[in-house]
Amino acid sequence: MNLYDLMKNRRSTREFLKKEFPVEIVQKILNAGSYAPSGADQKPYVFIIIDDLSLKEKIRKNCVNVDKDFFNKSPDWFKNWMVGKKISLEKDFLIDAPFLVIVAGDKDKPYWLESTWLSIAYILLAAENEGVSTLTYTPSKVDFINKLLKIPLNFEPVVILPFGFCKEKPRKKNLINKDKIFFNKYQ
Amino acid sequence: MNLYDLMKNRRSTREFLKKEFPVEIVQKILNAGSYAPSGADQKPYVFIIIDDLSLKEKIRKNCVNVDKDFFNKSPDWFKNWMVGKKISLEKDFLIDAPFLVIVAGDKDKPYWLESTWLSIAYILLAAENEGVSTLTYTPSKVDFINKLLKIPLNFEPVVILPFGFCKEKPRKKNLINKDKIFFNKYQ
Repeated sequence: MNLYDLMKNRRSTREFLKKEFPVEIVQKILNAGSYAPSGADQKPYVFIIIDDLSLKEKIRKNCVNVDKDFFNKSPDWFKNWMVGKKISLEKDFLIDAPFLVIVAGDKDKPYWLESTWLSIAYILLAAENEGVSTLTYTPSKVDFINKLLKIPLNFEPVVILPFGFCKEKPRKKNLINKDKIFFNKYQ
Repeated sequence: MNLYDLMKNRRSTREFLKKEFPVEIVQKILNAGSYAPSGADQKPYVFIIIDDLSLKEKIRKNCVNVDKDFFNKSPDWFKNWMVGKKISLEKDFLIDAPFLVIVAGDKDKPYWLESTWLSIAYILLAAENEGVSTLTYTPSKVDFINKLLKIPLNFEPVVILPFGFCKEKPRKKNLINKDKIFFNKYQ
């Protein structure tokens, strides 16, 4: 396994096969999240694995509601990007993927959001390493997740990661970023 | 190379050898940062590589000033953590490491902070893959970096990554996080 190939081959996935797999693989992937560094070693996050179908459906309905509002108020460039990517507002991936993982960060910890997203990146690569596809999907409002899953209010859900096997691997993205690297000053 | 070994072996490093290496390795590491997914594919960040010694010294002095203030006002648990880790307030790593990389995120882009930290995680793993050590160091105030490096104010510097060879590899950390994984609800 070449690290750079793993990074390049990983793609965000919105279409999943309804194919089950053992929860132990999800746990292995999430364990990799705790290998990431975090502010003052606080690991300011929890992971909630969801496989209950009625719960997944409640989450999907809530996401559809909050995101339709958000989409309608979005700038044109964002709407065009969504349409260009053929991203449906129905969020079927929240039902089709056998597992959802909610990652919630503890807002009372230093650098909680930064640390949580370092951990999420490790999880993305671990998933690819296990042949599992996912997506970093954040609904435009998240307080309904606290209520549904009884998450204390000091924790903010920052992402829903559906885990499953993708229907069709999206093609590789354009990875050039030479225009983003500068020397000793900006530009 | 095993991905999980790479993740576990990577350690935050604060003591660097004054040993030079080619800038091309830094560029290769930063390129890996652009392989990470980002909100609406916007890649909302820039990387500024610094090898100019007088500039590194100016950065170090500013960091020492802002962080001494911050440390004095910090809660006891944080002071004790700093002392326990033998973390000096003099920040010699900002001089000793041959390269510093400032990562700045574009605050006008959606999910800019989240996307930037996904990219930073990819960079941490790429550095370990190249045998280069680093640290995610964020000074408690960052506006002096915008001034010094002429970075537009819509970009916020979110981290300084020193790149170099570590004096002594810190021992492995405790990686257990079983108490962080829940099923279908919190706890």
